[in-house]
Amino acid sequence: MGMAEKDEIRSKIELEAAELAEQIARQSRRGVARAISRVEDNTPVGRELLNLIFARTGKARRIGITGPPGAGKSTFVNELIQLLRQRGERVGVLAVDPSSPFSGGAILGDRIRMTTATGDDGLFVRSMASRGSLGGVAAATYEASEVLEAAGFDWILIETVGVGQSELEVIELTDTTVLLLVPESGDSVQAMKAGIMEGADIFVVNKFDREGGGRLIRDIQNTLDLCNWSRHGGWQPPVVPAKSYMGEGVPEVLAQIEAHYEWLSSDAERYRQVRIKKTEQRLRVLINRAVLEGAWSVANLETQMAESIGQIEAREISLYGWVEQVMTGWRYRRAR
Amino acid sequence: MGMAEKDEIRSKIELEAAELAEQIARQSRRGVARAISRVEDNTPVGRELLNLIFARTGKARRIGITGPPGAGKSTFVNELIQLLRQRGERVGVLAVDPSSPFSGGAILGDRIRMTTATGDDGLFVRSMASRGSLGGVAAATYEASEVLEAAGFDWILIETVGVGQSELEVIELTDTTVLLLVPESGDSVQAMKAGIMEGADIFVVNKFDREGGGRLIRDIQNTLDLCNWSRHGGWQPPVVPAKSYMGEGVPEVLAQIEAHYEWLSSDAERYRQVRIKKTEQRLRVLINRAVLEGAWSVANLETQMAESIGQIEAREISLYGWVEQVMTGWRYRRAR
Repeated sequence: MGMAEKDEIRSKIELEAAELAEQIARQSRRGVARAISRVEDNTPVGRELLNLIFARTGKARRIGITGPPGAGKSTFVNELIQLLRQRGERVGVLAVDPSSPFSGGAILGDRIRMTTATGDDGLFVRSMASRGSLGGVAAATYEASEVLEAAGFDWILIETVGVGQSELEVIELTDTTVLLLVPESGDSVQAMKAGIMEGADIFVVNKFDREGGGRLIRDIQNTLDLCNWSRHGGWQPPVVPAKSYMGEGVPEVLAQIEAHYEWLSSDAERYRQVRIKKTEQRLRVLINRAVLEGAWSVANLETQMAESIGQIEAREISLYGWVEQVMTGWRYRRAR
Repeated sequence: MGMAEKDEIRSKIELEAAELAEQIARQSRRGVARAISRVEDNTPVGRELLNLIFARTGKARRIGITGPPGAGKSTFVNELIQLLRQRGERVGVLAVDPSSPFSGGAILGDRIRMTTATGDDGLFVRSMASRGSLGGVAAATYEASEVLEAAGFDWILIETVGVGQSELEVIELTDTTVLLLVPESGDSVQAMKAGIMEGADIFVVNKFDREGGGRLIRDIQNTLDLCNWSRHGGWQPPVVPAKSYMGEGVPEVLAQIEAHYEWLSSDAERYRQVRIKKTEQRLRVLINRAVLEGAWSVANLETQMAESIGQIEAREISLYGWVEQVMTGWRYRRAR
């Protein structure tokens, strides 16, 4: 490819990114949807767009809503959306949906159709599918949230099914994390096992009027009482009972979300450190992606792997020894 | 560090790895436990050990057991262990436990104490904690399974809580995956949402005598009937009803595990391709790890990041532009 052709491709990318940025700035629903797709697919246009809009990010509130399957997250999120919309605030929702083509993801599809049908321009709902090995769903979700921010959404609600590494990564990128639990057989203990509790800023015992509800609230409270909250900088997570299908408890949760934000921003230096930590994490993800893409494209690794796989599989050579041998002498270095 | 010192450290590593390999070969329980710790911590000794024992791997059967919280996985696994031990076969169990220091992981801890207390040398139970960004829990679990293989364990049972990316990655490394579901409110649909169904070779409807059990079995069967099984190479996943706390259905599941293995190995070329795909995946993980470690240690990235983070956080420069600028001119290349 000649220099002129490269320049032409480059300016096409820049043009499309600039057009998308402009559509986002005037809050075009179609523009936002298309921009998130470009970002999700990690295209050159998507990357350029993120670069263009970065200066307009950093102001929206990111709220993670998580919990085991069946905890009533969707209903809870719907109630929360209504409360925020009644206040006139614009709400973007990103549902990290681990569904696959096999399972169809029909449930979320229905919700999206439902919400778009209302014609409310202050609400945008999007499902984030799992993205491949480089970057992952957490990175794609965060990048989509930046698009929503640049489009003037005040709140970004990020809904995840709360068991697993990718969900933990998503939560690490939010300002406030709400964990929903329900009083069902084994669920309380299992959910505590799920490692999510540590990241939660607000606990909600949903469907608290069911059998075992009172016990679950006490169990969580007892566990929380054992903790050293100075480690979390002094915020002691509240436990809020809710029946989200009746809307009960949801205003109290929103009040706690606000209280958590007040607390977060009350100490300017601590708040700055928290934000820097999140930015650093984003930088690490992006650097790792760039490094890996570079290595696989330059170092002929695919071909070398294809040539040796038979011998490795036959245990004629060691898989670990092979990797060491292939990597020896390769260095990541600045071109001269 | 001088050449002599480097050589000394190198030979210390080789010595410890060789000692561990020897302890593993004579099936020392303490040796196996220590080896898995070295591997899990990704130490030089752990890496050298994996290299040493690689030739002794590739024969054990890896069975993934997964399902949503509360599906009865632990009880099911305990029953399966008993069946296999009655046949005189040696069983290693790796429980991918997303518990954190906060939640304590006491449940699994109890199981480990219980099983070690029986003094059965043909059984080894180990919890795999979540490992950091490089490699992840899937890699650590697979590497631990290689240690167990080299120690002569015939079966490796890998138990995971079945929602999330890391669990999908673990499953991709097993030969046969068993998915447990229970007839509980919303669970069936939620579990199907969880994207795990696609990876399952055997479905178990546990606690099938509960309300909704028959319907769940029919639901799964109907969904499976819609699928194009040629995509899975012709294996049509069975749906087995079980009450694992009574041991009911567990022998049938074991029979299906055997049937799946028969089917897998009946076509030598297909079996070879399946195994090569798994080996390729392992190679990719190891190469990525080596590349990233190399880049971060060589390219001064931490320092550069620390110097710019304030400006990025203040939106004075673009995060995305900064990464692009830092990475420009850097290439992964062979040293001359």
